[in-house]
Amino acid sequence: MKSKGIFDDPYRRGRLLSADCPSRQILRHVTSRWGLLVLIVLRTGTHRFSALRDQIEGVSERMLAQTLQALESDGFVSRVSLPVVPPHVEYSLTPLGEEICDRVEGLADWIETNLPRLLQAQRQAAE
Amino acid sequence: MKSKGIFDDPYRRGRLLSADCPSRQILRHVTSRWGLLVLIVLRTGTHRFSALRDQIEGVSERMLAQTLQALESDGFVSRVSLPVVPPHVEYSLTPLGEEICDRVEGLADWIETNLPRLLQAQRQAAE
Repeated sequence: MKSKGIFDDPYRRGRLLSADCPSRQILRHVTSRWGLLVLIVLRTGTHRFSALRDQIEGVSERMLAQTLQALESDGFVSRVSLPVVPPHVEYSLTPLGEEICDRVEGLADWIETNLPRLLQAQRQAAE
Repeated sequence: MKSKGIFDDPYRRGRLLSADCPSRQILRHVTSRWGLLVLIVLRTGTHRFSALRDQIEGVSERMLAQTLQALESDGFVSRVSLPVVPPHVEYSLTPLGEEICDRVEGLADWIETNLPRLLQAQRQAAE
């Protein structure tokens, strides 16, 4: 089945099941291994690069920089570079970033809260 | 900072920011490129392997099989093999899978609905 372009759709709505729908790439950015955790930390306020790196255990500087760049190019994160020495760069959520973070946190929070049930389900599935 | 094990935590709650918390792996499975789309399709009812493959544009049989196996081992998906020739295998969400799918769909639905705004934000960020 050939997918229609987003602007041919009368509802102008994305379709994640279509391989060529741009909604898939945006979903990849906000649910990537680090993208999701960056959003969750930025939800608590503006952060410097080093503060993000320190709070997100296991992320490399290279992956963090790539992740921030993707979220910035989607319009979810704003980057402010202050003209001081040494360079001081701050990241924060845009209004659009705040909105998507509500949904991301709904998922993350459910997993954290239900972890004991989830670990029990894993044990049962392994039996 | 050394993380405590989940069962040492008085709240018995996962912590996604800790590298060794099992909640991270579960989050990876349900937000993987294909895991999320499999959950969304199974939300509409029981499906055979071939029906899942046909609905999710771009997935290979190998990736679909791996994705289903991960979701099954987390207790989100149940697999029923019917004793017929040719083999007939059906997949459906478990009650736990229905619960997590609520949150996954909240995120997916927001992206699909807001795609025109998101594409506009991408254009602005590129200027």
